[in-house]
Amino acid sequence: MYMVFDDKFSDLGRSLEPSALTQIMNMITEDVISFSGGLPHPDSFPVEEVREMMEYVLTNEPVTALQYGSPRGNEKLIAFLAARSKDKEMKVTEKNFLITSGSQQALDLLARVFLDPEDEVIVESPTYLGALGPFKNQKAQLTEVPMDDNGVIPEELEKILQARRTENKQVKFIYLIPTFQNPTGVTLSLERRQKICSLASKFDVLVIEDDPYGELRYAGEKVPPLKVFDKTGHVIYLSTFSKIFSPGARMGWVTAHESIISKLVYLKESVDLHSSTFVQSIVYEYCRKNLLDQHIKDILPIYSVRRKAMLNALETHFIKDVTWTEPEGGFFLWATLPDHIDTKDLLVEAAKNRVAYVPGYAFYPGGQGQNTMRLSFSGVDESQIDEGIKRLAAVVSKEISK
Amino acid sequence: MYMVFDDKFSDLGRSLEPSALTQIMNMITEDVISFSGGLPHPDSFPVEEVREMMEYVLTNEPVTALQYGSPRGNEKLIAFLAARSKDKEMKVTEKNFLITSGSQQALDLLARVFLDPEDEVIVESPTYLGALGPFKNQKAQLTEVPMDDNGVIPEELEKILQARRTENKQVKFIYLIPTFQNPTGVTLSLERRQKICSLASKFDVLVIEDDPYGELRYAGEKVPPLKVFDKTGHVIYLSTFSKIFSPGARMGWVTAHESIISKLVYLKESVDLHSSTFVQSIVYEYCRKNLLDQHIKDILPIYSVRRKAMLNALETHFIKDVTWTEPEGGFFLWATLPDHIDTKDLLVEAAKNRVAYVPGYAFYPGGQGQNTMRLSFSGVDESQIDEGIKRLAAVVSKEISK
Repeated sequence: MYMVFDDKFSDLGRSLEPSALTQIMNMITEDVISFSGGLPHPDSFPVEEVREMMEYVLTNEPVTALQYGSPRGNEKLIAFLAARSKDKEMKVTEKNFLITSGSQQALDLLARVFLDPEDEVIVESPTYLGALGPFKNQKAQLTEVPMDDNGVIPEELEKILQARRTENKQVKFIYLIPTFQNPTGVTLSLERRQKICSLASKFDVLVIEDDPYGELRYAGEKVPPLKVFDKTGHVIYLSTFSKIFSPGARMGWVTAHESIISKLVYLKESVDLHSSTFVQSIVYEYCRKNLLDQHIKDILPIYSVRRKAMLNALETHFIKDVTWTEPEGGFFLWATLPDHIDTKDLLVEAAKNRVAYVPGYAFYPGGQGQNTMRLSFSGVDESQIDEGIKRLAAVVSKEISK
Repeated sequence: MYMVFDDKFSDLGRSLEPSALTQIMNMITEDVISFSGGLPHPDSFPVEEVREMMEYVLTNEPVTALQYGSPRGNEKLIAFLAARSKDKEMKVTEKNFLITSGSQQALDLLARVFLDPEDEVIVESPTYLGALGPFKNQKAQLTEVPMDDNGVIPEELEKILQARRTENKQVKFIYLIPTFQNPTGVTLSLERRQKICSLASKFDVLVIEDDPYGELRYAGEKVPPLKVFDKTGHVIYLSTFSKIFSPGARMGWVTAHESIISKLVYLKESVDLHSSTFVQSIVYEYCRKNLLDQHIKDILPIYSVRRKAMLNALETHFIKDVTWTEPEGGFFLWATLPDHIDTKDLLVEAAKNRVAYVPGYAFYPGGQGQNTMRLSFSGVDESQIDEGIKRLAAVVSKEISK
């Protein structure tokens, strides 16, 4: 598009453009079985509960729901979240909370509050695509730490932190999705969680723990959030109602040291005054009536069945030299194809055969991982999963045998 | 508060702190008659309509309302806004729209897309307090243009633009609230609107027209938005559902040249993915059922009565050497006291006498206007307005006679 006003944009404004991924994803049409999006399944939406809560809120607290609110968020909702976090053994009070418009906003606020151009951020390799935007908008330098099946490798992390200490350079923060990671589905082990918290304190470096999927475990043993092991306030915990209530609500929260929350609150006020009081009131009622835990129980089987269906389909249809992770929760698994396959090119073929995924390169700040892909099982009905994986296996098989 | 992690914040993070105004405003307790906030009156909230729309949305389009949506916003809502804007003689299509979480978010997005440190922004003197945050966060230089009873003075604006042209310097944009301005209540005259649009084209400078109150006219002749006279795409128009539906909804929109909208959409995606689809669905139903225009008709008398009550009370109780504007709409009027009165100090006395306002200095980037105050009539019942102004007059009178 011919851009008038090109001489007026800021550095950031000039740098903003549609990602290659967006362009690829536009190829995905209606009749495609898509394992690409990280969408909750519509069956998981608590429609009747929302109706009931809405009714309650409009009858009992219409003004709270419709008037301006405070930048920090609905006090009752915060009190609920604080109590729930304490139940999970986090050492926090209500002063450690900020309500955000989804975790995406938390990432943007944190990026702005901490990052100047050239500041270093350490991320898992691969990491959540949507975090790269806020970090890059602040012109951060992203350093990737390798992962294995137990998550990010603490020894590799320590090497980097030690090197920076020697160079007398600061790492602004480490960004991790420790549980059912997006994109790999991998979960950081208990030992590694403890080790990483020790490293954070020892090297005085902040850790952002992004935990959108933590409540969605379908197999294996529960592992506490990193924040539970945080004795020095170095862990900033993010979560969201997107996957356990509704993403359209755009409702999430930050749990962090009070001095960090203060800064975020001041910024939040100039960014959008506050998140919708309307939605906050409904979400609070939903929580207060204990519908949240019930809802989580209700949706676990939906996703559990899909995860199983995808793992089965992969076993059934996939060819040798293709490997994949076996996530114990969340929405995603990660497949690795033979080195010479480029999943970006392959997606064109896949789309022609009416199946889609996200090419792995999109999750690497450095753009590597050309032979990997993220497969999401959350948004596809189990009856379609087998067919989709079958189509994908045929496309992959054809490409491998070329 | 002792701030740990002080060595970690960005330049922006370090600069964020509670404003002096926030601290002053904290003095205002429950039993104070407060003319300070720009709050819509709760009686104006369409509670029953929201209930009805909610019911409709949850029955007919629960997935649209609860699932992720597009960064640009609900297509039907955008189509409605585009049609409505065309009815108002704006030359726009759906491509000229972005849905934002209130106009506050539009200001933040625009500031980020356009402003690098030291970039110049021209603002009315005084201007909307809440716009100063986003502009200052980008480290913009703010230049004030004087106003009179017909709004900002085009000749003064032209002088600045001419000077910059001579110096070969760029002004990034001019920020105006042309109709029922916050804080003064003043409306820019028709002739000046045309003149300012000509200046924008002639000097190739963007104008942000912030119009939250345009629909709330209680007296005088309607004047079209600046955007109507914009032939070259230089005017960026902002409005919001905050004052004509509910501020708690956090729902606003930007109308601008397509090349500007594109940049805002890319940024919006990394900022919060999109505004609540839940709220967008309800707001759209509200618009589609023609409840918006009906609602505006319903609320006009509420505010009209209050405006009249405040003007009457000022006539009745105020002493000579105090002057005030007579707004034809909106929420505010602006009072000017004798030069030697400092309204910041006076507020302490006022609060003791259980009445409050916002000291005028807060609306000047340069902090001048120490003898001015903003009085909001929107949030106070007319029965209380006379009593509040009486209390204020007593405090002012005492101070003047000191």
